[in-house]
Amino acid sequence: MLDLATALELDGDRPRLSNDFVLPDGLVYLDGNSLGAMPVQARERARRVVDEEWASGLIRSWNDADWVSLARRVGDRIGALVGAGPGTTIACDSTSINLYKAVSSAMSHADGPRVILTDSANFPSDLYVLGSLASAHGWELRTVDPARLTGALAEGVGVLAVTQVDYRSGRRHDMAAVTGRAAGLGVVSVWDLAHSAGAFDVQLEECGVDYAVGCGYKYLNGGPGAPAFIYVSSSRQAEMSNPITGWFGHEQPFDFDPSFRPAEGIDRMRVGTSHILSLSVLDAALDVFDTVDRFEVWRRGTELVSYLIEGFEALGLEVITPRLGADRGSQASFRHPQAYAIVQALIDRGVIGDFRAPDVARFGVAPLYLGHRDVAEALAALSDLLEDGDLERHGIKRGQVT
Amino acid sequence: MLDLATALELDGDRPRLSNDFVLPDGLVYLDGNSLGAMPVQARERARRVVDEEWASGLIRSWNDADWVSLARRVGDRIGALVGAGPGTTIACDSTSINLYKAVSSAMSHADGPRVILTDSANFPSDLYVLGSLASAHGWELRTVDPARLTGALAEGVGVLAVTQVDYRSGRRHDMAAVTGRAAGLGVVSVWDLAHSAGAFDVQLEECGVDYAVGCGYKYLNGGPGAPAFIYVSSSRQAEMSNPITGWFGHEQPFDFDPSFRPAEGIDRMRVGTSHILSLSVLDAALDVFDTVDRFEVWRRGTELVSYLIEGFEALGLEVITPRLGADRGSQASFRHPQAYAIVQALIDRGVIGDFRAPDVARFGVAPLYLGHRDVAEALAALSDLLEDGDLERHGIKRGQVT
Repeated sequence: MLDLATALELDGDRPRLSNDFVLPDGLVYLDGNSLGAMPVQARERARRVVDEEWASGLIRSWNDADWVSLARRVGDRIGALVGAGPGTTIACDSTSINLYKAVSSAMSHADGPRVILTDSANFPSDLYVLGSLASAHGWELRTVDPARLTGALAEGVGVLAVTQVDYRSGRRHDMAAVTGRAAGLGVVSVWDLAHSAGAFDVQLEECGVDYAVGCGYKYLNGGPGAPAFIYVSSSRQAEMSNPITGWFGHEQPFDFDPSFRPAEGIDRMRVGTSHILSLSVLDAALDVFDTVDRFEVWRRGTELVSYLIEGFEALGLEVITPRLGADRGSQASFRHPQAYAIVQALIDRGVIGDFRAPDVARFGVAPLYLGHRDVAEALAALSDLLEDGDLERHGIKRGQVT
Repeated sequence: MLDLATALELDGDRPRLSNDFVLPDGLVYLDGNSLGAMPVQARERARRVVDEEWASGLIRSWNDADWVSLARRVGDRIGALVGAGPGTTIACDSTSINLYKAVSSAMSHADGPRVILTDSANFPSDLYVLGSLASAHGWELRTVDPARLTGALAEGVGVLAVTQVDYRSGRRHDMAAVTGRAAGLGVVSVWDLAHSAGAFDVQLEECGVDYAVGCGYKYLNGGPGAPAFIYVSSSRQAEMSNPITGWFGHEQPFDFDPSFRPAEGIDRMRVGTSHILSLSVLDAALDVFDTVDRFEVWRRGTELVSYLIEGFEALGLEVITPRLGADRGSQASFRHPQAYAIVQALIDRGVIGDFRAPDVARFGVAPLYLGHRDVAEALAALSDLLEDGDLERHGIKRGQVT
């Protein structure tokens, strides 16, 4: 079933759900979880912001091009993709900075013990941010195996801070179950959606999540270093606070008030001036989601990852990604002592995935611009490579990682 | 001397020091201290990042287009404009976030009393950041009149945090004298260069400044919401620390180390992924500074502001900007009960300045793309306006501010 003919049949009349992406000919791009591909709308929007809004409009564009509300408008659009209502999400800064703000705020009003609970598979940047916040405020950072997360919630915790999808294996936490349990115990929850937003169905409000942050340049396709986002549930907004009190978090930034009065609502989580150029391009990238049936997108992603995993298994590879769609993000990974060499050799053959130390090859599946055909081509290249022993050409011996 | 003929004579054969800027015909743009005009290089660079580096290079551009070192390269270029050597300045985040990092770091190793000294004319965002850092760590924020700053340094202070140029009046602190005195008393100094970098000669190292931050979208012309910068003197780099420990502040971000090991050098002040698109455009904008004699730029700025102030005085306006070049930034402001209406009426006549509550009209002078002719035209429009009583047309009565 992994041959090209079957793949074409599975794609049917839609080899890609969206034809808005510009992708180099002959390339199979399985790294949209690192940097999403470019939607054609991004090109025109970048030109417009630079040539018209900036060069001609100049400072007047704050009103005329509505730069003033861009962070909120983009935030609301992202919110709509992760089950969050208007006024709960804002696009700004980087994921790590937003995590710092979210967890600081959560700590400031958490009732439980002064313990932050996370898991050992969390993204390193998140672990660093949590570690320094805990030590700065005299809290304990408790790091458990991801499989133990639910159990550990009962053991006296103030704030739960986890990433929904493991960036290496693709394992996904059950947001509804974990958050429900946290809420029942009075634990404030903070979720990092870096590998979730735009990749599969997320329902922040339905799950009762208190805070969330996420990335603009992965499955949202906002471009290199696109602004990130932060979500605060409407029920937490009265008590939320931002440790970095910049002028855009003020109730009236243009009053130039010498005293800080925190903004009502999600604007409170802003700090400085929006990165208008990057933010505009992210806004344009989100247009793609308006042209497709969202549930078809999530379904396509699940199908493609399943297809990829079956392929890996047929090649005898040690897959570390869960088999059930609901248990994983939109990626498939295998462990191999020559993972680094395999990823390099695939890149030489026009299939881009990436390597995560010490021995993981990981392949992101962006459902908007990939089809079964892409997956079949990647698998064919991988199969050739493993049969040929082509890895030797890369001068990398078994087990060597550079 | 304020007539057009004199202005043309003063400009000589260089009506603008740089012809690289794209400015709308017929517009006199005196708001480069809010948002700098667009250098033509920015347009091509934005196109290249979007169309080539992102769309075609995709994730490979981290190496192939050297996105990895962009923040440092841009930082070094900005450093060269503010008297800072290589490896001391990095471009990232927003000015307010960088101030938060710089002041946190300064507080962490300051030996003096737990007092932050600032002045009441500091930019509101800076006052907010200082206020919450002081209260979070049990410090006192002492805010004095700017004229009292030097005297107040002797009264027991740990950290000095001021903005060099008052965003309303343009009054400039004497960086050498203030920093010298601070250093003599063991006070750690943090300077905000928002209205300094790219506007006039700044010598951070020569003055012995410990920390500095500044803005990319004003006199550096990096585009709307361009990334900001942060400087840490080489003598403070061993003890500097970043309160927001993200992966790009790690010694080896791509090791995905679960434990944080702070980077050596200025990279330690980074947090998350660089905003590559915005940062690239800022990089391109800095090219302009390589095409001009920097000292000619600073001289032109001083001349133009003097010319503007003389014009205001000839019109009987209450100028609040210091007369001596060394005592001010690159702007001129006057106070007027109808300042808001004046600024609006000038905008209608194609002269863009801006209003700062309650009664200040302020005009930024970007020396790279303005000449005496622009100033003369602005003054002529202002003169007409004041004679005509044209302000009534704007429906705004004396003293009313909206």
